[in-house]
Amino acid sequence: MTLTMTTAMPPPPGVRVGLIDSDIHNTPVPGALARYLPERWRAYHERFGRRGYTGAYYPKASPAAARTDAWPPTGGPPGSDLAFLRAQLLDAWSIRYGILNTLITIRNQLRDYDAALGQAINDWQLAEWLEPEPRLRASLVVPCDDGDLAAAEVYRLGGDRRFVQILLPVRTSEPLGKRRHWPLYEAAVVHNLPIGIHFGGGSGFPITGAGWPSYYIEDHGGMAQSFQAQLISLVCEGVFEHFPTLRVVLIEGGFAWLPALKWRLDRSWRRLRDEVPHLRALPSEYVDQHIWLTTQPMEEPARPEHFLQLLDELGGADRLLFATDYPHWDFDSPDQALPVRLAPTVEQKIMVENARSLYRL
Amino acid sequence: MTLTMTTAMPPPPGVRVGLIDSDIHNTPVPGALARYLPERWRAYHERFGRRGYTGAYYPKASPAAARTDAWPPTGGPPGSDLAFLRAQLLDAWSIRYGILNTLITIRNQLRDYDAALGQAINDWQLAEWLEPEPRLRASLVVPCDDGDLAAAEVYRLGGDRRFVQILLPVRTSEPLGKRRHWPLYEAAVVHNLPIGIHFGGGSGFPITGAGWPSYYIEDHGGMAQSFQAQLISLVCEGVFEHFPTLRVVLIEGGFAWLPALKWRLDRSWRRLRDEVPHLRALPSEYVDQHIWLTTQPMEEPARPEHFLQLLDELGGADRLLFATDYPHWDFDSPDQALPVRLAPTVEQKIMVENARSLYRL
Repeated sequence: MTLTMTTAMPPPPGVRVGLIDSDIHNTPVPGALARYLPERWRAYHERFGRRGYTGAYYPKASPAAARTDAWPPTGGPPGSDLAFLRAQLLDAWSIRYGILNTLITIRNQLRDYDAALGQAINDWQLAEWLEPEPRLRASLVVPCDDGDLAAAEVYRLGGDRRFVQILLPVRTSEPLGKRRHWPLYEAAVVHNLPIGIHFGGGSGFPITGAGWPSYYIEDHGGMAQSFQAQLISLVCEGVFEHFPTLRVVLIEGGFAWLPALKWRLDRSWRRLRDEVPHLRALPSEYVDQHIWLTTQPMEEPARPEHFLQLLDELGGADRLLFATDYPHWDFDSPDQALPVRLAPTVEQKIMVENARSLYRL
Repeated sequence: MTLTMTTAMPPPPGVRVGLIDSDIHNTPVPGALARYLPERWRAYHERFGRRGYTGAYYPKASPAAARTDAWPPTGGPPGSDLAFLRAQLLDAWSIRYGILNTLITIRNQLRDYDAALGQAINDWQLAEWLEPEPRLRASLVVPCDDGDLAAAEVYRLGGDRRFVQILLPVRTSEPLGKRRHWPLYEAAVVHNLPIGIHFGGGSGFPITGAGWPSYYIEDHGGMAQSFQAQLISLVCEGVFEHFPTLRVVLIEGGFAWLPALKWRLDRSWRRLRDEVPHLRALPSEYVDQHIWLTTQPMEEPARPEHFLQLLDELGGADRLLFATDYPHWDFDSPDQALPVRLAPTVEQKIMVENARSLYRL
């Protein structure tokens, strides 16, 4: 690993040219956001801050859910030091572009504070990440339970091409197909920005339809079910019928569950289409047209040929985006991300081209 | 369709010999259970009855979730008339054995009433279904949120071989791996009865980890996620480590999602095994050893070869049990249940042999 920038140098042998990492987590050091908040909300933020919520948690043994080697020598939390992130991630793996997803969930807490906090996070991203590092792009952080407020933030900054996506957590207080979220989709379409839905958040309710589980591994394994629920909601509520150019990226939710979900929804739709007459296509067709998925956590079948079957059932690899999830504990490294060797053109799509096209890089 | 019993006659051409239907729903006519309740709870049952719960519902256009042709001429609800069920299901399809799953969820309402209601339902099944019709077997209905009470009912009747399973709804108020449920598993193992977990029930919380959905099709599609949650809970809590002979049947939850879940759990376990040191095998190994699945609703990939891939990913068809879901609206008929033709030995396993062996028929 080199600690200097290497973008102008040829990559070392075996390192892919132009790699795009679609899920990197940057984090403010304590106090960083306060500088971007107006006086009224700076005081509130420092005295009260965001309320807790009953969502995903992380093992104490992995503070901040981070790789143990990801704590910057300068002292802040993992993902808080640009120079360290440059060296440990962008330079080390010759990453051409990296997409920042700042994981700060803004719920319906206090409307003006929610709005100010979203603005502060995005202004902080612009000033401290996007300005100094041209390889980085970022997702707009917006309130996740208030479509109007979220849309306002998209209209404020969505014209800046360094923001390539709008970020929501997968666990919201109501499913993302509900009408309260539609003003956000309108804004996303206006600015041609995909909606990224990321592992995490919290609904205030149990993560399962059968109550609260006991273990972190259940929470971690169970998050894929919230992705399934959001996808069902987006399709069945007619979001993609109403917003035919809307694109949605499911980030850190896995993807092996998708074929089964499409089959099940199509079968249900054939029998229940009277209930959803606003759907004019098979549910699977909306999925095929509107959904992208990131690779981390990579699916790892016990038998490698089942990974190839999975790609076949997905209809190919055109919608998969490579992601490391840096600096988190379950980081997928670029050289070991794929459980089997794929045709070079297929690997190139997953590691580079799909993200380049989706995010217009 | 004949309206007389045909078990002694050869089946018509094309009809399989010895077919076993692993999911049939019988229902009491109004007032039927009262005769099996003790005086104290008969009055309570008639005046107050079971409280509602916020669980699965059915479209008004399909009252009782039933096939429109399944209403008996004698006037009761679908599944309430043995003679009609004999003619429309057992005789018509030459079914050798049918497993009755009475869908009455008994929650934590009032302990003595809960116990009396379970006893009444099972006594009613014995007197009005199992005694008069030797082709039928039944699942014991037990309170689903109280392991001690459920175990007591298993000890009361589990020695009667006409009861071949213990029935729980997939949506419980706490996941089925929790210790409160373990006394039931102890009783199940003592009587060598599988636990059947069936579509339905209600936790009191939303079915999704992201709040309440809008449409029935979302509820219907989302139920598979509750099955995933229960399977994760059973495995991660160590139920199968503690009860190595326990068998679990997932009924009406689909099965195409299972390979992805096994891959995800195995990957999580490799990274998080410190949290669950009581697990001495890979999660997928517990699944492979302890889980059976019914076919209805049959998975219907858009491309038939994907059904064959699915069987390959499942490791074969040894754990699939054919089911019609009679008399419900999404009935799978025996002659059209499989979306592709399989090898005769494989079809024979799914339609007959797997259930015969599991239920000791």
